[in-house]
Amino acid sequence: MARKASLSGFPEWLPQERLVELHVLDVLRRTFELHGFANIETRAVETVGQLLRKGEIDKEVYALSRLQAEEGEPAGKQDPNQLALHFDLTVPFARYVVENAGHLAFPFRRYQIQKVWRGERPQEGRAREFTQADIDVVGDGDLPFRYDVELALVIAEALGALPIPDFRIRVNNRKLAEGFYRGIGLEDTAGVLRSIDKLEKVGPARVAELLQEELGATPGQAELALKLASIRSEDVSFADEVRALGVTNELFETGLDELEQVIAEASRRAPGKVIADLSIARGLDYYTGTVYETVLVGHEQLGSICSGGRYDSLAAKGSRTFPGVGLSIGVTRLVMRILSQDFAEASRSVPTAVLVTLADDDSWSAAQDVAAALRGRGIAVEVAAKAEKFGKQIKYADRRGIPFVWFTAEDGSHEVKDIRSGDQSAADPAVWTPPAEDLLPQIASRGAMLHS
Amino acid sequence: MARKASLSGFPEWLPQERLVELHVLDVLRRTFELHGFANIETRAVETVGQLLRKGEIDKEVYALSRLQAEEGEPAGKQDPNQLALHFDLTVPFARYVVENAGHLAFPFRRYQIQKVWRGERPQEGRAREFTQADIDVVGDGDLPFRYDVELALVIAEALGALPIPDFRIRVNNRKLAEGFYRGIGLEDTAGVLRSIDKLEKVGPARVAELLQEELGATPGQAELALKLASIRSEDVSFADEVRALGVTNELFETGLDELEQVIAEASRRAPGKVIADLSIARGLDYYTGTVYETVLVGHEQLGSICSGGRYDSLAAKGSRTFPGVGLSIGVTRLVMRILSQDFAEASRSVPTAVLVTLADDDSWSAAQDVAAALRGRGIAVEVAAKAEKFGKQIKYADRRGIPFVWFTAEDGSHEVKDIRSGDQSAADPAVWTPPAEDLLPQIASRGAMLHS
Repeated sequence: MARKASLSGFPEWLPQERLVELHVLDVLRRTFELHGFANIETRAVETVGQLLRKGEIDKEVYALSRLQAEEGEPAGKQDPNQLALHFDLTVPFARYVVENAGHLAFPFRRYQIQKVWRGERPQEGRAREFTQADIDVVGDGDLPFRYDVELALVIAEALGALPIPDFRIRVNNRKLAEGFYRGIGLEDTAGVLRSIDKLEKVGPARVAELLQEELGATPGQAELALKLASIRSEDVSFADEVRALGVTNELFETGLDELEQVIAEASRRAPGKVIADLSIARGLDYYTGTVYETVLVGHEQLGSICSGGRYDSLAAKGSRTFPGVGLSIGVTRLVMRILSQDFAEASRSVPTAVLVTLADDDSWSAAQDVAAALRGRGIAVEVAAKAEKFGKQIKYADRRGIPFVWFTAEDGSHEVKDIRSGDQSAADPAVWTPPAEDLLPQIASRGAMLHS
Repeated sequence: MARKASLSGFPEWLPQERLVELHVLDVLRRTFELHGFANIETRAVETVGQLLRKGEIDKEVYALSRLQAEEGEPAGKQDPNQLALHFDLTVPFARYVVENAGHLAFPFRRYQIQKVWRGERPQEGRAREFTQADIDVVGDGDLPFRYDVELALVIAEALGALPIPDFRIRVNNRKLAEGFYRGIGLEDTAGVLRSIDKLEKVGPARVAELLQEELGATPGQAELALKLASIRSEDVSFADEVRALGVTNELFETGLDELEQVIAEASRRAPGKVIADLSIARGLDYYTGTVYETVLVGHEQLGSICSGGRYDSLAAKGSRTFPGVGLSIGVTRLVMRILSQDFAEASRSVPTAVLVTLADDDSWSAAQDVAAALRGRGIAVEVAAKAEKFGKQIKYADRRGIPFVWFTAEDGSHEVKDIRSGDQSAADPAVWTPPAEDLLPQIASRGAMLHS
């Protein structure tokens, strides 16, 4: 479980590890669909012009060129029509919504689970290919605020169903923060957010210095900004603390009311999971209200495993705008942690529950009949390819963790053996089924380790 | 269903179309797992050196470069360490097997469903991004021949479960063909195969000319080669026809015996689906025995939708070789055909079965309780975000094809309405379930159209 990727930043899993990843993906899909999210996929490439439109120049982008390109084809790196791999699922989704607006029913709820790529410098050892799972609800012109509450609850339910440690979805509100900064006389709200974003890294004393040095804040203004950022609570009690700072500003009041709504409902439906944390800033410019970040308790240094927020205008088509709210789960980051910490593992490396053995080479076709009968009831079956000694056929099953081997005698009678216990008994291919826990590979969470 | 991709060669689906694709992918996954194939994924990129190793210079490859690359990073197109997108799943699988040989149990059965990319010239309108679904069984040193039979049967079962027209898996054997050519005195067997591969395109008269002009065949040799290529049968009767051509050669006899084994078993288990077709050549050099191609009956001009074969050495690690047999389904090609010909469609565009309406804005939380109760039994539910007029809320459901809307009265009593029939009746969130056919979106095949 600790093999190194053969190409730095491009993780690959063994079959048994992949089963853990598939389990994570299946749980997410199932949860999102239970909440009415429809699936889409977008192409892996966008034009460079599209990718850099939102000013995301800090993202490292992989540009494409045909190895056998001819003269005159786009190849120059400055060409906005050059194709490049998407670095997230938000930019492609925005394009998809605009292109297909006439075919979608708004508010449009979608989930999207795909790989994304970041052209990080090879030596930094960061992931250069990874899977994200995004949910968004996008409106045509407007979008009720309630979706900001709902999405936090959907994510809490999805994460709660995964074999991961306890987590905290930390919620803040951009209107609250920006209105507060304006209310205390700091107009460069983006600058203040950038400084506050460094809190965990450099500490409050340094942030206070930055606010004064770079933004011209007075010591009192810096103190107030830091006081706001220090407030957090699992319930709506944060609101009184915030109001006690004595700031008045209309935008601030709106944001405070919104954050209260999220926390009031979430603390009731997912107690302890969704908390108010007034230090959350989120780097991305396009968020305009609620912002979310998520940490695994005891694994905070892993960074946020699920982030997102509300945006007034994901995209625009003429005068039509599409506001939305969404979150993105870092699936690969989670799976790497699950595997490296042994939070969960698959009970076997193959889907196969039964190996049908061969008494002699001519019985292969009859063995396929047995296999077909079992498969008809959803049991995964392999048939031995050669009539080797039974000991060797059993060893084949054992090496794969296949729990049952099937024997057909010359008289046509059948027996099935549990190779773990050695129990062997008569069986009928038309009715026999394995115990439910042996039907499919099970993903066993190590509960004790998760919550220690 | 006939929208054009906004970027030529990069198809994208609407949510309702994506449900059809998901259905195809789910059927394939389920079938492969029932047959004991384990899933893996490989990274999207390989080095250019790896991709071109097998001499696949006719494949158009997309090379990657970091948009913000620095001096000294690989960027030249001749650099074998440059990264490029894979153009199939076979080359990456070969690398994966070699890298992980110490961690895999052989024979290793895997399925792999991923996107691949081909840097086709933009103006040709060919797919540049598409999904393939591959199955392979790979041995360590040797691999019983029986897997050649088994794989044809697994694919026949998988394709038979899809909403596509009838199909034919055409099987031939390289040993048979090459041995035959040698037996009649044509030593450039690769050259003969290349000519025979053009049969469908240019016809037998032109192929006879090519054999004589380019390979120096006599008219008699050309005639025999074309006679062989004209043989096909649904059962083993092809073998007598082949033998009647009077050629003797050891390799030819081996190949003939192998092809007989495949057709004998397959004609019993999948009658009419797996046929001998002695014209199948397959362009790829690495096949060494059985070769497969698949056409949809009535859609032959679509080309092969599933191809593959036996290879003696997919990869080597020192003196260790890994022989295998595998097939690859062109998922995107199939899905495009299903959608463009309306072979199947989803019964609704969203997973949602029930919309819980709001009588007033304060009842949102209570509505979430109803939704949670229903979801607990696997029913996909959305809750209205605003207490609009009931007519508007019902219209929201109607536009999405959500079949049921839920009402909770002030006294706490519940009713559910089927908006298609208008039927409305009392319901209990703790026990109510929709009819099975409404639980999930159904993919309805247009059976009549498929088999007309």
